[in-house]
Amino acid sequence: MDFVKELMFLKEQLKFRGIFDVPRNIKNIAIAGMGGSGVAGKIFSEFYSDRPVSLIDDYALPKFLSKSTLAISISYSGNTEETINFTKYSKRKGAFCVTISSGGELSSYGDQHIRLPRSDLQPRSATGYMLMPLLSSFGILSNNEVKNSYKLLSSLDKDHSKCADEASRINHGEKIPVIYGASPFKSIAYRWKTQFNENSKIMAYSNSFPELNHNDTMAIYGTYRKNDLYFIAFGSTDAKIKRRIAVTSKITGTRFSLINPQGSTDIEKMFYLLHYGDYVSYHLGLLRKIDPTDVSLIEKLKREIKSTTIS
Amino acid sequence: MDFVKELMFLKEQLKFRGIFDVPRNIKNIAIAGMGGSGVAGKIFSEFYSDRPVSLIDDYALPKFLSKSTLAISISYSGNTEETINFTKYSKRKGAFCVTISSGGELSSYGDQHIRLPRSDLQPRSATGYMLMPLLSSFGILSNNEVKNSYKLLSSLDKDHSKCADEASRINHGEKIPVIYGASPFKSIAYRWKTQFNENSKIMAYSNSFPELNHNDTMAIYGTYRKNDLYFIAFGSTDAKIKRRIAVTSKITGTRFSLINPQGSTDIEKMFYLLHYGDYVSYHLGLLRKIDPTDVSLIEKLKREIKSTTIS
Repeated sequence: MDFVKELMFLKEQLKFRGIFDVPRNIKNIAIAGMGGSGVAGKIFSEFYSDRPVSLIDDYALPKFLSKSTLAISISYSGNTEETINFTKYSKRKGAFCVTISSGGELSSYGDQHIRLPRSDLQPRSATGYMLMPLLSSFGILSNNEVKNSYKLLSSLDKDHSKCADEASRINHGEKIPVIYGASPFKSIAYRWKTQFNENSKIMAYSNSFPELNHNDTMAIYGTYRKNDLYFIAFGSTDAKIKRRIAVTSKITGTRFSLINPQGSTDIEKMFYLLHYGDYVSYHLGLLRKIDPTDVSLIEKLKREIKSTTIS
Repeated sequence: MDFVKELMFLKEQLKFRGIFDVPRNIKNIAIAGMGGSGVAGKIFSEFYSDRPVSLIDDYALPKFLSKSTLAISISYSGNTEETINFTKYSKRKGAFCVTISSGGELSSYGDQHIRLPRSDLQPRSATGYMLMPLLSSFGILSNNEVKNSYKLLSSLDKDHSKCADEASRINHGEKIPVIYGASPFKSIAYRWKTQFNENSKIMAYSNSFPELNHNDTMAIYGTYRKNDLYFIAFGSTDAKIKRRIAVTSKITGTRFSLINPQGSTDIEKMFYLLHYGDYVSYHLGLLRKIDPTDVSLIEKLKREIKSTTIS
């Protein structure tokens, strides 16, 4: 599929539910996922905190897993080495296992398997599919929010000229984007970073308010190569965060490119910001005359790792 | 105190224990801390997973807190707004509260308060003090490891010329450090980033294996400004991580500066890598002819935020 068609397909993914059972006796939740498949868990963890949520993006596995744990494994392909490793471990520990994938090895594991409707997308273009089961199963988003988010994504699909302008400003002077979010959009700042990595093939860095005020602040003011960096902050309606952005900008003498999310709830704003970053990174890829779709190097690396693991 | 004397004082902090009670009925742990005081919790969470550990560096607070929660608040000054906010919340939720500080408002809260021996250090130079109560109370480090870590830190204190060389290579060409760690040293990679921010006043970025192989990899290969970046990776004895570093370096055509930790256990290696980064960032500050101690801008920002919050 053409990459821009993939991007436009995000809104259609909102129609998917993929509801799984959440056993009542569950005391904690562990969600495993890498890269584009890991973002779903990261987003979810900013909207749900009724129980502790641990995110696993590693070979290292937490000891606390037990039959009181809901272990959720997410991999679009279903064949991610680290995620399969976690799934086997969580089964051994007696956790209630949910697997979410479009097929692959993961589909044969799990007390419950959620099969995603399509397997022909890039994992990072299937975030909607991987996120919806989490939000739906825990009753986090309303039908109204789905409807409104669909409209917001459609409007960006129709007109992403502002995203193209943003990309052009980054590309002019070959700047390294620094993306600052704040709860509940920290994971979206990280998502922008990964999209710049994969779609635009450039380095990028994300952090969040208020944590960045305890370290980055010194660098924003005094770093060398300051003019080689491009500072982006997500606009916030939270008075404390708004104030922090303004004060940080003032005392460091730095202009932030403010991305103000549309939408009336945090979920709607989250989808808007997510998609906005999709288009900025896409346009930057085009401006650089590289193929936004191509992640052959990641695939090559996976093969090389695998071949050595087997031998 | 002279900044290099502060750095040399880290080893003395290993003699501090600061043991607090861990009630038996505790089901989960939440640790709050910002910046230099937040690093202690981040390090601890890589060495302890018998129960879910949630790290809080935000105004946003998790709903799951209850009387089954051990809530640990860490602030060197004891006056960090976000951390006090968390502490009040955790008391309201009935959690067992432990506060760790050298004084300040935090010392009047908590079912147990751990008073740190000195209040005249920079928070980021007191990591040992803030980390030891966590490692000691959960029985994570042995007397032998304390002894060996003391020796390792002493040897770096006596000769940090390799750190100065590293700093010089970064400063030559004014490069932006990209620091790659792997479990259980991800938080140390983040620590290096924050030390570059505060001691050297430069931007820096950290990530970890294997997650970075799902996004950064594309950028390491194809990004613009590649020669403006300086790639650092912590050497590992884990076969999988070792392999990933080698393959990533090969397929992206990128040289990583490998920092191989001394020490015979992960705790010892952790302290060695931590201190190594202290000295690299310190020397880079000197090379840039700026004062590594100065974080006046962070203090100014705190005052500005506070004044608006009150009015």
